[in-house]
Amino acid sequence: MTGEFDWIERIVSCLGPSGSGIGDDAAVLTGPDGETWVWTIDTLVERVHFRFDWLEPEAVGHRGLVASLSDLAAMGAEPVAVLTALAAPPDWLADRVERLYEGLAATARHAGCPVVGGDLSRAAEVQLTVTALGRCEGRALTRGGARPEDEVWVTGALGGPAAALALLAREGPKPDVLAHAAYDRLARPAARIDEVRWLQTRAQLGAVIDISDGLSGDAGHVADASGVAITIDVGRLPVDAGAGDVGRRLNADPIEWALHGGEEFEVLLTARPGSIGPLVEEFEATFGISLTAIGTAVEGAGVQKVENEVAKPLDTKSWDHFATPPDSGV
Amino acid sequence: MTGEFDWIERIVSCLGPSGSGIGDDAAVLTGPDGETWVWTIDTLVERVHFRFDWLEPEAVGHRGLVASLSDLAAMGAEPVAVLTALAAPPDWLADRVERLYEGLAATARHAGCPVVGGDLSRAAEVQLTVTALGRCEGRALTRGGARPEDEVWVTGALGGPAAALALLAREGPKPDVLAHAAYDRLARPAARIDEVRWLQTRAQLGAVIDISDGLSGDAGHVADASGVAITIDVGRLPVDAGAGDVGRRLNADPIEWALHGGEEFEVLLTARPGSIGPLVEEFEATFGISLTAIGTAVEGAGVQKVENEVAKPLDTKSWDHFATPPDSGV
Repeated sequence: MTGEFDWIERIVSCLGPSGSGIGDDAAVLTGPDGETWVWTIDTLVERVHFRFDWLEPEAVGHRGLVASLSDLAAMGAEPVAVLTALAAPPDWLADRVERLYEGLAATARHAGCPVVGGDLSRAAEVQLTVTALGRCEGRALTRGGARPEDEVWVTGALGGPAAALALLAREGPKPDVLAHAAYDRLARPAARIDEVRWLQTRAQLGAVIDISDGLSGDAGHVADASGVAITIDVGRLPVDAGAGDVGRRLNADPIEWALHGGEEFEVLLTARPGSIGPLVEEFEATFGISLTAIGTAVEGAGVQKVENEVAKPLDTKSWDHFATPPDSGV
Repeated sequence: MTGEFDWIERIVSCLGPSGSGIGDDAAVLTGPDGETWVWTIDTLVERVHFRFDWLEPEAVGHRGLVASLSDLAAMGAEPVAVLTALAAPPDWLADRVERLYEGLAATARHAGCPVVGGDLSRAAEVQLTVTALGRCEGRALTRGGARPEDEVWVTGALGGPAAALALLAREGPKPDVLAHAAYDRLARPAARIDEVRWLQTRAQLGAVIDISDGLSGDAGHVADASGVAITIDVGRLPVDAGAGDVGRRLNADPIEWALHGGEEFEVLLTARPGSIGPLVEEFEATFGISLTAIGTAVEGAGVQKVENEVAKPLDTKSWDHFATPPDSGV
């Protein structure tokens, strides 16, 4: 079956010369005075990206906005403004439109990013599209900036959202599932805007990408765009404590969720050797999340995982909507 | 039943202080050096805004882009760039994604507006969202700029798209229907970007709005936003020749399509008395479309139609997706 990334190639070939700048977390525009703007769009589709029996409308609004803010974060941009487009059945709107927008608005206020307009359509299924515009003080960070010898770092702890999905699939939205720490990672993720900007002014960053498609797949995107190989030391992966707990409960390996789970908005960064290490303590004290060296960029191509000192090619499964059964997703 | 415009009010109240600038064709952003950017988003939903048995995929792509470019036109902005989000079933994509994007890309090239990125999702129904960013040389034009005594003008000839829809509904997508001049107005509308910018530098414009919701409804939006009444002289309406022909064929009044039809991207402008009249000949020679004085702005509220020298309140039916049966639309 043809996957999402193949479709994107086909579309880019249709767009021809007008389709410039496609292929990073966000498009980069240069303003008339040389300033750098970045711009992104993301759609959440009911029953593909989320299920209303698993996620409150407020959380859907929150996640819809965070998906776009996270793209800006990965480019080193500060959010400027947001537009939304919501399509939904009228009876759905009557019950839940305010709750969805309240979730979205709370997150927008928190990010200092006004919602300046939107579009509303009747439709058979709920689709929430958010487009966000941001501005970079210097150059935009991209997924193509990694060089051999760069260290590979990741923010936060991984695997929580995928663990929560596994738990929901097994046990349903029971109260103790919804109260689980892993569920909180699914329902209330954060975009790492301040974290990336903080590092950008202090470290020698190479490539940056958010890992909303999953660590392995997004590491693959960095490898492809940068022309390097990425090596991930599985033993160093910062696995979310909630994901660890779910792993014990379901007799599953939380490392798989951390490697391939996606649906989270941490960022993978590469940096010149030694340029991040001295900053870790201050970073973790400032932001209250971890910053972990998980591997290196080397000459070559693709992604390798190192486990017990043995390197093997890593399956870079990405979150690919077209290769996933229709009822999967949050 | 609650209509689209009521929902928008409810959403704006949820957004609170973060929901600034909502309510014109596009949002207005002021850049760091005082420059004016405008930004819009529009979604086309299959079976609400279009039907694939009535419209080729190329025409859907074209219309999706024109809906957003027309919003920029109404603000007096030049398009800078576009992002798209397409959600569709995988089997639909296999057959038609390239044709949709070829239609969109051809129109983008024609407008000098690069498509800089996009998002692609699996979904049960086809939804195409386009967001466009534009830049104004001076101030942004708005629907709130009409003053009493302004003349009311409209570009182009009206009613073609609605006539084509009536014909399709009655006779189906037969070859001679698809070859009809009115159908061309439906399938290949143009955004009046150059026309508005040309007038902006030469006339004293008041309010500007595109009439994609229908002339009567959009005149009502100008009246509300400007705090004036708009009077439309029905005898002066420039009715599309194709719409006239369809009217005779279906024994229907094309004036109704011109007044309420919508789905077209002409613009209504108000201007200080005498400031457009001397420009009409040059405008029509330059752009190959008509420019017609159809009424005036006066003290008061709402929209009135003048017919045989009698003024009556005009029903400002707007294109309201939520009050329309699910299978209507293009």
